[in-house]
Amino acid sequence: MIKENKITQHDSVGIVKTQSFTFDSLSLETGERFGPVTLAYETYGALNQEKTNAILIVHALSGDAHAAGIYEGHDELGWWDAFIGPGKAFDTDKYFIICSNILGGCKGSTGPSSVNPKTAKPYALDFPLIGINDIVNAQKKLIDHLGIEKLLSVVGGSMGGQQVLSWLVNYPHNLCSVVPIATTIKHSPQQIAFNEVGRQSIMGDEHWKSGNYYDGTAPLKGLAVARMIGHITYMSDKSMAEKFGRIKKESSHEFKFTADFEVEGYLRYRGDNFVKRFDANSYLYITKAMDNFDASRGKRFEDVLAGTKVKVLIISFKSDWLYPAYQSKEIVKACKLAGIETTYCEVDSTYGHDAFLLEVEEESHLIRHFLKKVFYAYEVTGEYGS
Amino acid sequence: MIKENKITQHDSVGIVKTQSFTFDSLSLETGERFGPVTLAYETYGALNQEKTNAILIVHALSGDAHAAGIYEGHDELGWWDAFIGPGKAFDTDKYFIICSNILGGCKGSTGPSSVNPKTAKPYALDFPLIGINDIVNAQKKLIDHLGIEKLLSVVGGSMGGQQVLSWLVNYPHNLCSVVPIATTIKHSPQQIAFNEVGRQSIMGDEHWKSGNYYDGTAPLKGLAVARMIGHITYMSDKSMAEKFGRIKKESSHEFKFTADFEVEGYLRYRGDNFVKRFDANSYLYITKAMDNFDASRGKRFEDVLAGTKVKVLIISFKSDWLYPAYQSKEIVKACKLAGIETTYCEVDSTYGHDAFLLEVEEESHLIRHFLKKVFYAYEVTGEYGS
Repeated sequence: MIKENKITQHDSVGIVKTQSFTFDSLSLETGERFGPVTLAYETYGALNQEKTNAILIVHALSGDAHAAGIYEGHDELGWWDAFIGPGKAFDTDKYFIICSNILGGCKGSTGPSSVNPKTAKPYALDFPLIGINDIVNAQKKLIDHLGIEKLLSVVGGSMGGQQVLSWLVNYPHNLCSVVPIATTIKHSPQQIAFNEVGRQSIMGDEHWKSGNYYDGTAPLKGLAVARMIGHITYMSDKSMAEKFGRIKKESSHEFKFTADFEVEGYLRYRGDNFVKRFDANSYLYITKAMDNFDASRGKRFEDVLAGTKVKVLIISFKSDWLYPAYQSKEIVKACKLAGIETTYCEVDSTYGHDAFLLEVEEESHLIRHFLKKVFYAYEVTGEYGS
Repeated sequence: MIKENKITQHDSVGIVKTQSFTFDSLSLETGERFGPVTLAYETYGALNQEKTNAILIVHALSGDAHAAGIYEGHDELGWWDAFIGPGKAFDTDKYFIICSNILGGCKGSTGPSSVNPKTAKPYALDFPLIGINDIVNAQKKLIDHLGIEKLLSVVGGSMGGQQVLSWLVNYPHNLCSVVPIATTIKHSPQQIAFNEVGRQSIMGDEHWKSGNYYDGTAPLKGLAVARMIGHITYMSDKSMAEKFGRIKKESSHEFKFTADFEVEGYLRYRGDNFVKRFDANSYLYITKAMDNFDASRGKRFEDVLAGTKVKVLIISFKSDWLYPAYQSKEIVKACKLAGIETTYCEVDSTYGHDAFLLEVEEESHLIRHFLKKVFYAYEVTGEYGS
């Protein structure tokens, strides 16, 4: 009898395990030296002998190292499972895929909720302010540890895209290509504003206690509100209308401010679920890193990129109003001005910012063909990124 | 020596006083009878003998009766002062302008912070759930009290526009015209979602205490976050970029999550200021009224409007993404299908939703000429609305 489930399906990477890598210390952008640092990571597929088939996938704000497959005894698929596996866009029959949880996170990597070895207590706000470049510098140590000199590609959406741009700027010689998706060179005031309101919501929660909540109740309500704001910005007006309309939920009306509309119930559900799996201080540190990031370092981005030989595929989505297409076009323009081989596609989607997780078919098509081209150039012709 | 200040300027209505009108009770949409009800209101200009020159201005979420002029000893102008006064769009040399604070509000009208005569304590959540139609029914009693049978116009933006549509649907025979600005027949899930997150933020504040905070500390942090969310939605991506850019504030960096960017400082300032003048429970009741409102009563809006003879001027703003132009166009379409004399203008503005308060020149021009035409038809030709 053949028993078929998700883990035996031919296009799944199957059961995976999270690994971890610890190194002594990292020199931060602020000048501070911080350590030890542990990064949680997963890999899918096999590294070839020449070590030319490694692709780093970097996650968004609330993501983690679990990008594909399932854990033993669980059935929750990784956050980008639709893209990673045998025959998929990131074809694990061809490529070696790495995904690590970021520095500052709360899913196995060192972050504010980790225990400070000096005090034997969680860092809380003693955790240093980190930037996107610090997150990437930590990833670089992992890639070195794995013995990979040159990545075939670094790929990610949203905050993942910010990391991709940081890789492009800081490590062009260690890359053949990059794929920044639904991202920006630097946050606009509107993007900063949405993050700031989320931070205010967390810090306004009575349980936040200047970050020292680890031995008591966490600021769950503040974090839930921050997440709800996020969810609104991840969807489009249209995708919300299609998903919820003005459908009213069954409710007793004993309480006046119950979730009458389905959209209200959805937001409450998503907010309440998020707080079970995410640390509020990590939310503060990571959003601040996003807001402070400027891939152009105050210069013209094309000048920063000058001389770079890395191939670039940029993807944006039509209904994404959080990271609007004009921001991707700014990246495209700078790349072209810098003489970089650049492909750009604005995918026609109604999903809003969430599209980078949901537009599987078109996005897969773009990524698959781009990687094929890059891999061919690297393997067969020996053409390098830079 | 001539001393010139705001109150002696020729285009100001000068010093004004808020008045109030109390009536026994109101039959609410829920079937409940509620009272007594007090409405705070102001008037500017003089009612003519024939009582044909009265215009009702209805305010948005955080507005009040103080639409024009200043109070004795204060210098804060009314919220729509740029539009109301001698020679302005609402020309007080010609028209009699009325503006009342809404039922459920906290600026002199009966709302959840008012004392319940039965308990001698603030109503808090014993205040009944109200709808936009209830707000308008209370206003109608004020208009009756002032002896006005037919209003020359009812004008308002945002939630004011929802009240305008309620007037149009419920009292067409008491109107010559209406001007709904930057508004909608009914809220979309996205609009509901932003309000819901604001409500969650208030109700998640430890000080909210199921609404019973009047003898202690109010849920100031929760309300401030709700207001900050509001402010982001009132501006456009572009107007925020123009106003703030990525300018960093001077900050000591002793605290890691200080307001580094000007936009952060602005939001905190606006949030903190708002809580000094607004009641959190009013915020809950009013936003719920907005979300529940459906001018089309579940039917096609053109069918609800059939036979109405009221003249309509609809105004929307290009960069307004909270009440996008497509929602105004839905009103236009329904009015035209119902055979109503309808004028529509989408003003080219970068201010976002705030444009209805800020685009003085073009909006004044539209309103001035529309009112002139309506007044002429009403006065000279004796043509009635319906």
